[in-house]
Amino acid sequence: MPHASAVRALVFDVFGTVVDWRGSIIRECRALGRRAKLAVDWAAFADAWRAGYRPAMARVRSGELPWMSIDQLHRMILDELLARFDIVGLTEAQVDHLNRVWHRLEPWPEARRGLALLKRRYLLATLSNGNMALLVNMAKRARLPWDCVLSAELFRRYKPDPETYLGAAAMLGLEPGEVMMVAAHKDDLRAAKACGLATAFVRRPRERGPRVKLDVAPEPDFDVNAKDFVDLAARMAK
Amino acid sequence: MPHASAVRALVFDVFGTVVDWRGSIIRECRALGRRAKLAVDWAAFADAWRAGYRPAMARVRSGELPWMSIDQLHRMILDELLARFDIVGLTEAQVDHLNRVWHRLEPWPEARRGLALLKRRYLLATLSNGNMALLVNMAKRARLPWDCVLSAELFRRYKPDPETYLGAAAMLGLEPGEVMMVAAHKDDLRAAKACGLATAFVRRPRERGPRVKLDVAPEPDFDVNAKDFVDLAARMAK
Repeated sequence: MPHASAVRALVFDVFGTVVDWRGSIIRECRALGRRAKLAVDWAAFADAWRAGYRPAMARVRSGELPWMSIDQLHRMILDELLARFDIVGLTEAQVDHLNRVWHRLEPWPEARRGLALLKRRYLLATLSNGNMALLVNMAKRARLPWDCVLSAELFRRYKPDPETYLGAAAMLGLEPGEVMMVAAHKDDLRAAKACGLATAFVRRPRERGPRVKLDVAPEPDFDVNAKDFVDLAARMAK
Repeated sequence: MPHASAVRALVFDVFGTVVDWRGSIIRECRALGRRAKLAVDWAAFADAWRAGYRPAMARVRSGELPWMSIDQLHRMILDELLARFDIVGLTEAQVDHLNRVWHRLEPWPEARRGLALLKRRYLLATLSNGNMALLVNMAKRARLPWDCVLSAELFRRYKPDPETYLGAAAMLGLEPGEVMMVAAHKDDLRAAKACGLATAFVRRPRERGPRVKLDVAPEPDFDVNAKDFVDLAARMAK
């Protein structure tokens, strides 16, 4: 782990890495469905919402759409899904509240404990495509102990654009090699590594539900491969 | 307190409001002086450093200087002061470390306790002209429990420019009236109020040392006038 010894700050991908977006959305939407008497396959709904995210971001990254926050992208996708899943009768306030389910995602079971351990030695920040308000509300509600909330929104670029990784390091007053990107997604880590950041892969095999088999094999290219955040803390304490 | 009932987030001025910049700088510089055998009036030095801050910011705000972070402004002023106070023999690393004394300022005695009380009901963020790295390092070291670190640097404007107050509210996803500016400086609060923010004045009569008498009289124009952060928490709980 030659790279990792210089690390002073860890920056975390959030959706899927820190929080279980799929499980959280399914749970909250099922409760909504019972109250509003909606018969919807909420697992399919959650998957479709998330599936709309990358194409929507790609349209912003290509310049086809103007800069939009993730809250705005989520809402654009949600409006399509409400029609596609035949969800009718929700007021504007209810749709807006539903859109903010992304502010209320729950952390993976060991995440808070792992972060508390890592916080003793490292500066911890988010580096998510989620907008600042989303990340701040999520952290407050889920008691995620960030030293600093950073979002791609600050750079008006989305990951994996290099401006986000380099911008985060600069904003923390650190060299790229003093910052470690932590993510459950190998493409995010490869982009961070190309910018000179250290990298830690964390396995989240259930991110897409019990039926989808994800590639969670360790990669020698990354500085650390960890089972979860508590395991990462143990490896980073060496 | 009609305004304050809508408040969901408190944004704090930092230098002088949260931390005792003068006492902290004098203490650390005196220790440096003993080690490096420098005979300097460190209280005058601290006052001169702070006195250089507004004129330097004014040169950036007017466009005479390009955008610079507060770390860079502090260094520009420090380089002048080292000559003026006849401080010689420091290495570049020592000067750089000295410049970062602003990252190591100590909170006023009740600040941490008051913030912990306020954090139960409100989202707490900084809104300082200090740059992000400075504020994050300070918070980590002094264990200041911010939900979010926001800096004028994010908007490439300095307070009291309206872009900073409005930008902070927008970044938190809130209306200006849902955000309360907390400061020991009336000009900061008046500028925030002009942007529609709620305002809380906190008395810090010793900010400029025991000999300088500051105007700490309550002002009916502000939504809250408080003795300190614990008093502010009590008033905001009503």
